[in-house]
Amino acid sequence: MLKRTLLALALASSFAHADEGMWMPQQLPDIADKLKVAGLQLDPNNLTELTEFPMGAVVSLGGCSASFVSPEGLVVTNHHCAYGSIAYNSTPENNILANGFLAKNLSEELPAAPGSRIFVTTDVRDVSSDVIDQATAALSGRERVKAIENNSKRLVAECESDAGYRCDVSSFYGGLSYYLIKQLEIKDVRLVHAPAEGVGKFGGDTDNWMWPRHTGDYSFYRAYVGPDGESAEYSEDNVPYQPKFHLSLAQEPLQEGDFVMALGYPGRTNRHRLPSEVEDTFTWSYPNTVSYYKQSLDIIAEQTANNKDAELKYASRVAGLNNYMKNRQGMLDSYADSDMLARKQAEHKALTAWVNSNDKNRNAYADSLQQIESLLKERQQREHQDHAYTLAKPRLFATAQALYRLAEEQQKPDAEREVGYQARDLPRFEAYVRGLARNYDSQVEAALDRHFVRQYLNKPAAQQHSEFNKAMGLRADMSDAELRDVIDAWYANSVFSDVDARMALLQMSPAELQQSQDPFIKAAAALYPQAMAEEKREEELAGKIQQAYANYMRAKIAYMNEQGEAVYPDANSTLRVTYGNVKGRDHGTHDGTAWTAFTTLRGIQQKATGEGEFDAPDAQLEAIAAKNYGDYFVPSLNSVPVNFLATLDITGGNSGSAVLNGKGELVGLAFDGTLDSIISDWDFNVDNTRSIQLDSRYMLWQMSQVDGAQNLLKEMGVE
Amino acid sequence: MLKRTLLALALASSFAHADEGMWMPQQLPDIADKLKVAGLQLDPNNLTELTEFPMGAVVSLGGCSASFVSPEGLVVTNHHCAYGSIAYNSTPENNILANGFLAKNLSEELPAAPGSRIFVTTDVRDVSSDVIDQATAALSGRERVKAIENNSKRLVAECESDAGYRCDVSSFYGGLSYYLIKQLEIKDVRLVHAPAEGVGKFGGDTDNWMWPRHTGDYSFYRAYVGPDGESAEYSEDNVPYQPKFHLSLAQEPLQEGDFVMALGYPGRTNRHRLPSEVEDTFTWSYPNTVSYYKQSLDIIAEQTANNKDAELKYASRVAGLNNYMKNRQGMLDSYADSDMLARKQAEHKALTAWVNSNDKNRNAYADSLQQIESLLKERQQREHQDHAYTLAKPRLFATAQALYRLAEEQQKPDAEREVGYQARDLPRFEAYVRGLARNYDSQVEAALDRHFVRQYLNKPAAQQHSEFNKAMGLRADMSDAELRDVIDAWYANSVFSDVDARMALLQMSPAELQQSQDPFIKAAAALYPQAMAEEKREEELAGKIQQAYANYMRAKIAYMNEQGEAVYPDANSTLRVTYGNVKGRDHGTHDGTAWTAFTTLRGIQQKATGEGEFDAPDAQLEAIAAKNYGDYFVPSLNSVPVNFLATLDITGGNSGSAVLNGKGELVGLAFDGTLDSIISDWDFNVDNTRSIQLDSRYMLWQMSQVDGAQNLLKEMGVE
Repeated sequence: MLKRTLLALALASSFAHADEGMWMPQQLPDIADKLKVAGLQLDPNNLTELTEFPMGAVVSLGGCSASFVSPEGLVVTNHHCAYGSIAYNSTPENNILANGFLAKNLSEELPAAPGSRIFVTTDVRDVSSDVIDQATAALSGRERVKAIENNSKRLVAECESDAGYRCDVSSFYGGLSYYLIKQLEIKDVRLVHAPAEGVGKFGGDTDNWMWPRHTGDYSFYRAYVGPDGESAEYSEDNVPYQPKFHLSLAQEPLQEGDFVMALGYPGRTNRHRLPSEVEDTFTWSYPNTVSYYKQSLDIIAEQTANNKDAELKYASRVAGLNNYMKNRQGMLDSYADSDMLARKQAEHKALTAWVNSNDKNRNAYADSLQQIESLLKERQQREHQDHAYTLAKPRLFATAQALYRLAEEQQKPDAEREVGYQARDLPRFEAYVRGLARNYDSQVEAALDRHFVRQYLNKPAAQQHSEFNKAMGLRADMSDAELRDVIDAWYANSVFSDVDARMALLQMSPAELQQSQDPFIKAAAALYPQAMAEEKREEELAGKIQQAYANYMRAKIAYMNEQGEAVYPDANSTLRVTYGNVKGRDHGTHDGTAWTAFTTLRGIQQKATGEGEFDAPDAQLEAIAAKNYGDYFVPSLNSVPVNFLATLDITGGNSGSAVLNGKGELVGLAFDGTLDSIISDWDFNVDNTRSIQLDSRYMLWQMSQVDGAQNLLKEMGVE
Repeated sequence: MLKRTLLALALASSFAHADEGMWMPQQLPDIADKLKVAGLQLDPNNLTELTEFPMGAVVSLGGCSASFVSPEGLVVTNHHCAYGSIAYNSTPENNILANGFLAKNLSEELPAAPGSRIFVTTDVRDVSSDVIDQATAALSGRERVKAIENNSKRLVAECESDAGYRCDVSSFYGGLSYYLIKQLEIKDVRLVHAPAEGVGKFGGDTDNWMWPRHTGDYSFYRAYVGPDGESAEYSEDNVPYQPKFHLSLAQEPLQEGDFVMALGYPGRTNRHRLPSEVEDTFTWSYPNTVSYYKQSLDIIAEQTANNKDAELKYASRVAGLNNYMKNRQGMLDSYADSDMLARKQAEHKALTAWVNSNDKNRNAYADSLQQIESLLKERQQREHQDHAYTLAKPRLFATAQALYRLAEEQQKPDAEREVGYQARDLPRFEAYVRGLARNYDSQVEAALDRHFVRQYLNKPAAQQHSEFNKAMGLRADMSDAELRDVIDAWYANSVFSDVDARMALLQMSPAELQQSQDPFIKAAAALYPQAMAEEKREEELAGKIQQAYANYMRAKIAYMNEQGEAVYPDANSTLRVTYGNVKGRDHGTHDGTAWTAFTTLRGIQQKATGEGEFDAPDAQLEAIAAKNYGDYFVPSLNSVPVNFLATLDITGGNSGSAVLNGKGELVGLAFDGTLDSIISDWDFNVDNTRSIQLDSRYMLWQMSQVDGAQNLLKEMGVE
């Protein structure tokens, strides 16, 4: 299937294609003409204002996107984004995950899961010249990395002196630009409404990444602040946050072909990668990753086969491994059928030719283009070299390394500590160490170790780490029985199995940890100097790569601009806008089929089995059977739309993104892509790539005709 | 899904819709304008000539359609139409069913299965005034039926005096018109080529009635005649039949939207049924039929669970019951979602209003319109009344009734015998009785009898047949144990289990049969006078129905003609032409999907499992993987087309029909419909109904690139 569409693309020569692009709001005026042609009726210049409509209504949940939909801080996002909070409030007696939840008034709203946050981006400032100031620009290698780090930390600290705000310095275009992102951090988040799991997660893993889709992937939070209007921890005295702007539900029926745009926080993409990175990823990294996941899953399955307790502990990890494996394998399948590498190579060749076309360009970029290739090669070789070692590291050893590092960093003033080991990071450490037992079983871990350590020990000496072997009691020539005894001894002598003992590790100084009898902690302490030396080498390389990569991107942008094309940066979890159209696809999952733009309530009836992943609630099925369509009937579909496809350029992190029509009205929530186009993270292809959205009419229909959420509909100005 | 399309149709008021219609060739000039608009480039007047191009190339296999594709009598039809002949020639050592077969020259061609025939229609003559001559027109009831029968038999006998021809009088428009069909009967049929079952039956029962479809449903026969050119039984001296015309393969690539027409022999449709017939069929007859199939299947499954021999004997019947059950249930599902009855009622109301709109119409038709309703009601009541009895009749009892009837009929001169019991029918009787043991097990039959006879005995006395009860030893008040003993005794005392004994029955006179100790034969003989009386009553009613029905159809045709619409007769296994377009569908099997017009070789790769129903041959898969597309590559599909959808109006019997483009060139073979539109036998709906065709390019590709059938390609003028 892909062959056809990719063949067509091979004839196109530009880097970016129609509908492609995760644009920073401030870039939208650059593509104003295209937006107008596509159907945007708002002034693109207004979209750049983060504190104006509509951007002022768009928020991040950290990993998910969301938006305000009432003047009283009501927030809509995906069901899967609020899943933790719904599960957190579920009990066997009141299973709101299964049955759904509706607060009929403010007092019935429930606290979201601990750590839940709503981030409202209030400022995005270009700090490139602060992060890479004159002094930094003169540096190279590790010194450069450290200077960038320190400049960033200083900017963040200054910014966060404004209480209630969370700040980050984000790198754009592979280290070419840096922006300081300032976000109001709302800490009192409450669960307002979620449909039954049979609606919100209808289709489950079976339908994940699939079309046709019929998932009611929506839930409602409410943002609370102190009585003074400032960010505050949960308190009964808190009041709903009053955003300056919120989104309104669309008044006009959405149809195939209509303009739509998604506003949200996409996580990571790799559109600007060099051909050598593409090749290494798809011919070495991903295949090895899939193989590693597969081996891990087999071992976990074997070890937990007759151990229900262990099976439950690893259920989440197994789901995650399966999910990633499906993702990576999906990309590999697409890659195998594509000419992506050849195209990336041709594009890079054209860029190189442009760089060498005159002295000015050559002087500015030619060296960087050469350097980046050899630097990336060096990094790839190190990764290949260390691959077996990386997989062989026992999980508790990696944890021990982080804990020992934390102890070392805590010897310094907070501002000087390594990013990730500062005071602001401590709660995350504590939560992880405390919760370890919930997803950990020493028998399963030992089995994984036996397998991956044996693979590692079978490698040539050059790929082994003698200090690690020594610290962990490993020898290349040891028998399987000897290896088993050594590994069993690790777990028998470890203190991690005891919650108080492992929590105590968080309080210990390096010297105290060095005295620990825990084999993992002992090894981590012993290997610390080596790990630091290794990190230095990596930082040295990273500094060189940053320098060359930034200049490669500078060349690419100049080249594209010269051709009249704006260039959007790869996604980096910052606020972006993507636009496109509601659109089906001329080829479906199976040869001989196509995808229509909308699914309808009929599909729920077709799929509903009354159990498992397709357990649509009886009340919903009755409403469908009775044709209780309310105001949400669409004659051309002879039903209510449920989900719809669009050519929006989204990725993980966009979940919950508001999808607006040309007038800026809410028409849906983005929540997924399709398996046969997840390679779009590397290579967007408008013939093949579709985002999947919840149609807001389905949400409103369910709330109105089935779940009786009239209070919220009224609050949103709908009924 | 159906709701939408049927809703749209409800707004239309005409009886017939675009693309609908199985037209008799002589009717085509009446719709010449429509054919031209649709894209026919041939002169419609030429299509009426059965012995000219292209009709002269179209043949019947009796139950399937086919066509000549070379001047040397090469015939192409569906693989499933030649299945019996392929299986007949298969041996464990030379399994041509599994591996396919190709005769490299005439001498390698194999005799088709016994009884295989190729019928070439040479004349279709309106004999309405011969069948219902003045004398017959004056008759009513049974006398009318008998007169029609006798007139028909006389016409057939006269016609068949031309040696080598088979003739039939067929009723059109529910007995309004009669045509004498004269067909050259080619008796020496040979198998020339069939692809492997993994091509010809790819997808098996799973894909049956389904889209997307990837079945290479084609095979080749050759017609042979005596050296004198006359029809002859198989002989080594026979020579290929040289048809005056044959079809040529299309030169232009077929595309979505193109005009196509199918030429073939559709079996039965019910488009002109009265609303009361529709209602009785869908609310009483089909639901009861499905229930009967379900009960039968359950009992057979239970009885054959641990009896491999019995399971094999009933495999074909189980497949048939499942197939019919799927078909009938499919129609019931479509009916439940449709407004078909309301529409038929509205249409009939309009017709009634027209009949009553003036004296001329009223005098001509009003009485018939009233009569037909009460007559049909009477017939329905009889059927309902006899339903339990019909189901309860043991299979061997029904066989015995036929044999006893045969003996009685054989007392008369052949011409006077009842249709179905004449000399020409004897081979069929012999084959059935001889083969009985192959699909019969007395334990299974006894279990079916226990179930259905008990249901029958539970009915009120008015629904029971006292003579049958007496003859078979049944009593309404008998216990289950008593019933079991009685039934066991039937089978213990029956002679049917012995092949010689049951074949001997065929030679016996009525008097001899009356002496038989076989309980089924004894009962059949005893019940014969009652059966004859019952038949007389039925014929009396049938005669009245024929008279009223014909006049109802006369009214309907006059009404439609007045509106400028031609009316085609329901299908009756005679040669018909249907036209339409290559066209996908905007809604697929699953909500959120649609159907594309073509499938491609990619779908074979997707479906191929290497076993069972999806066992595509390795050589084929290798050719696909190697992109050995030969001359059959279609750029817009980036592959070779395999099957395609069209809006052709076909039904069972059309299998193997030549599908021609606007120039009369062969573009494919019709071979199936789709489950969600088989209700089209009652109610054609162009939004929903699609025929499935083998694309001739797939056939040619497989023959050229995989099976090495260059000799046949050359004979067809292709390569």
